[in-house]
Amino acid sequence: MYGEIITIGNELSSGRTLDLNSWYAAGRLTASGLKVTRITSVGDDHKMVSDALKRAVEASRFVIVTGGLGSTDDDITNEIVAQALNRPLCLDQQMLDQIEDHARVRRIKITSSLEKMAWMPQGSRMLNPEGTACGFSLIEKEVHLYFLPGVPDQMRYLMDKIVLPEILSHYKTLPIMRQRILKLYGLNEPGIAEIFKKIQGKTGNIVFGFYPRFPENHITISLRGQDEPTVTKELDRVEREVRRLVGSYIFAAGDQNMEEVVGHLLLEKNLSLSVAESCTGGLIGHRLTSVPGSSSYFHGGVVVYSNQSKIDLLRVDPRTLETHGAVSEKTVEEMARGVKDRIKTDLGLAVTGIAGPDGGTRQKPVGTVHVGLAAQDKVFSREYRFWGNRVQVKLNSSMMALDWVRRYINGNPFLSGI
Amino acid sequence: MYGEIITIGNELSSGRTLDLNSWYAAGRLTASGLKVTRITSVGDDHKMVSDALKRAVEASRFVIVTGGLGSTDDDITNEIVAQALNRPLCLDQQMLDQIEDHARVRRIKITSSLEKMAWMPQGSRMLNPEGTACGFSLIEKEVHLYFLPGVPDQMRYLMDKIVLPEILSHYKTLPIMRQRILKLYGLNEPGIAEIFKKIQGKTGNIVFGFYPRFPENHITISLRGQDEPTVTKELDRVEREVRRLVGSYIFAAGDQNMEEVVGHLLLEKNLSLSVAESCTGGLIGHRLTSVPGSSSYFHGGVVVYSNQSKIDLLRVDPRTLETHGAVSEKTVEEMARGVKDRIKTDLGLAVTGIAGPDGGTRQKPVGTVHVGLAAQDKVFSREYRFWGNRVQVKLNSSMMALDWVRRYINGNPFLSGI
Repeated sequence: MYGEIITIGNELSSGRTLDLNSWYAAGRLTASGLKVTRITSVGDDHKMVSDALKRAVEASRFVIVTGGLGSTDDDITNEIVAQALNRPLCLDQQMLDQIEDHARVRRIKITSSLEKMAWMPQGSRMLNPEGTACGFSLIEKEVHLYFLPGVPDQMRYLMDKIVLPEILSHYKTLPIMRQRILKLYGLNEPGIAEIFKKIQGKTGNIVFGFYPRFPENHITISLRGQDEPTVTKELDRVEREVRRLVGSYIFAAGDQNMEEVVGHLLLEKNLSLSVAESCTGGLIGHRLTSVPGSSSYFHGGVVVYSNQSKIDLLRVDPRTLETHGAVSEKTVEEMARGVKDRIKTDLGLAVTGIAGPDGGTRQKPVGTVHVGLAAQDKVFSREYRFWGNRVQVKLNSSMMALDWVRRYINGNPFLSGI
Repeated sequence: MYGEIITIGNELSSGRTLDLNSWYAAGRLTASGLKVTRITSVGDDHKMVSDALKRAVEASRFVIVTGGLGSTDDDITNEIVAQALNRPLCLDQQMLDQIEDHARVRRIKITSSLEKMAWMPQGSRMLNPEGTACGFSLIEKEVHLYFLPGVPDQMRYLMDKIVLPEILSHYKTLPIMRQRILKLYGLNEPGIAEIFKKIQGKTGNIVFGFYPRFPENHITISLRGQDEPTVTKELDRVEREVRRLVGSYIFAAGDQNMEEVVGHLLLEKNLSLSVAESCTGGLIGHRLTSVPGSSSYFHGGVVVYSNQSKIDLLRVDPRTLETHGAVSEKTVEEMARGVKDRIKTDLGLAVTGIAGPDGGTRQKPVGTVHVGLAAQDKVFSREYRFWGNRVQVKLNSSMMALDWVRRYINGNPFLSGI
């Protein structure tokens, strides 16, 4: 059940491209109960690739290799495999046919560099013979090697569709591993450490993980076991315990994100939302509209960066701006009410603040942000002080604003600070 | 001048966390003319870390190691280095003092786990003795090893401030390597391949790189040489040649992004901008306001997701919506004019389209997007068909819209399609 990942390409070893393939493969393998012991990235270099392959074959049960399968000169994986594992390149007729079909459809001339892709190390087997995403596998000293293209979409497709099921089929007696991910917002590291302390001793073989993902904090609850029902029951019990302690901070579980959760709640309660953004500049609207189907609850918003636009678009009282300033409780309340009335929605959400790096004062330093929410005939508002650079302040502000909608609908109190 | 990078942590080998540290380090080293031959990620495992270290010392001139320097139980780098390189742990008094000072200020009790951090492998030297970001270096068989914390901010700080200058100081005779990055939008892969063909034979030792970064395409022009003036002159010559061929597609160079370029142009021409967004949902405003100082040219925007909000906020004619539809040339033109008039800016930029996955028809499939720009008494508009999922259509639409502002100010024609 131990394996490793090798990614090939000068763009990786030179830091020009982020290695998303190894990250994806490792995540998928881990989630399936397998263990990745090592990830190696090397450039398009014969010796380095060859070394990495040989070492992997000696130390692992399975090896995932990505990159270097294409038709250009720097695609050298096939040749290296042939040399390193002493398997001469043979013409794979099925692969050649496929390349020729592909070229015919696209009206591309068959060249020697395209044909090169059909020469594969002896004993290798094409993955996905029908599809256009190509790769191959071979078995060397009982180690299963999978060679996948470096193009992320194709790599992910083959990984999920073919490689992962095949690897898992070799490990029928594998203990299952199940993991829950809980996403928290507003509870800091020491606060989360406290939870772990409180449930210590009640958790058996459960393994906890803590992963800050600014401005969120994720915790994982993992358990290995021989049968699904027992593992599930135990995870349920511990998850309930965690939720009992800090339930209101948990905004999502698994793959969900904040905007999906908020969208789901709005749909469920049949509520419509509009947004007035100052320092976030459109980020809240962008996040909300990243969810398919968001048009049924998100009706629109305004980005009021200047004072004049706050007056013109939201009918904020000029005297309010003069007396209290653009970043104030009073202004954010008028913004929330203004956008709710103008766009005629059930809820009006507003944010105004100082994202920096300039514009801060002693009274209102960079990071001072007001959030407001108008609902029915009430309007709520609160001041926050966020830490960080411009991007971080914007991100935290959008997160807090969306969290307000979530907490309002769930009947939880708004956060007093983070 | 060859080195490698080792990153340590279960969160990396399990695919829970993207390995941004190795990416950053590799990028910085490469940009300085050094070569990274291998990047290895291993979990918090004695044997794997030890193996990786020993191999690196045998094969490289310098090694950057990140992670495992903290105070918790899974921070095991110091111990492993001690064992693997046979250098017993010694108490570093300076480090201990610093930890104690730090604890005093923060009113934390000194524990054995905090003290652990002050026990360092014999012969190691603290990096950054005054700062709070800690790390150490040592020399083993003439190989320089640098151990940095896994926290990205601290790692980057030490990398740029201390490690990189120190490594470079050991290689005074290093041939310099200089690279230009040109960022293109709207020219696809075959189009870019054509440029490379056209300038072939005129480029000497120049190395070209091509990096698709959806929806952008980046090309790099690199050259190694012994003296700065010659390298610069040669790069200048080739860059001029590339710009002569496809200048208008190049929207930025180096680290700049589209929103910075657009902001810079608006500032330079003293023009103000407002934005009316439908399918992009706020993304254009978010991008514009990610640039510090953007409030001096970006005055605000509206996100008009519903038809009613297009009428209410932008005074789009209801008959236009009825006759031509929300996604049409006529609507986007009224949106652009509407936002320009309402927010009283020099330019009004508008986007309306179908981001999907639903809402497409045969006439207007998912990906149909109209961009409009109102300037003085003129208004321009054009239809595009973008390919991809919801996120990609939003991204491409925001990019195209911003590119319109850039092209308008530069006097270049708008793109007819991509």
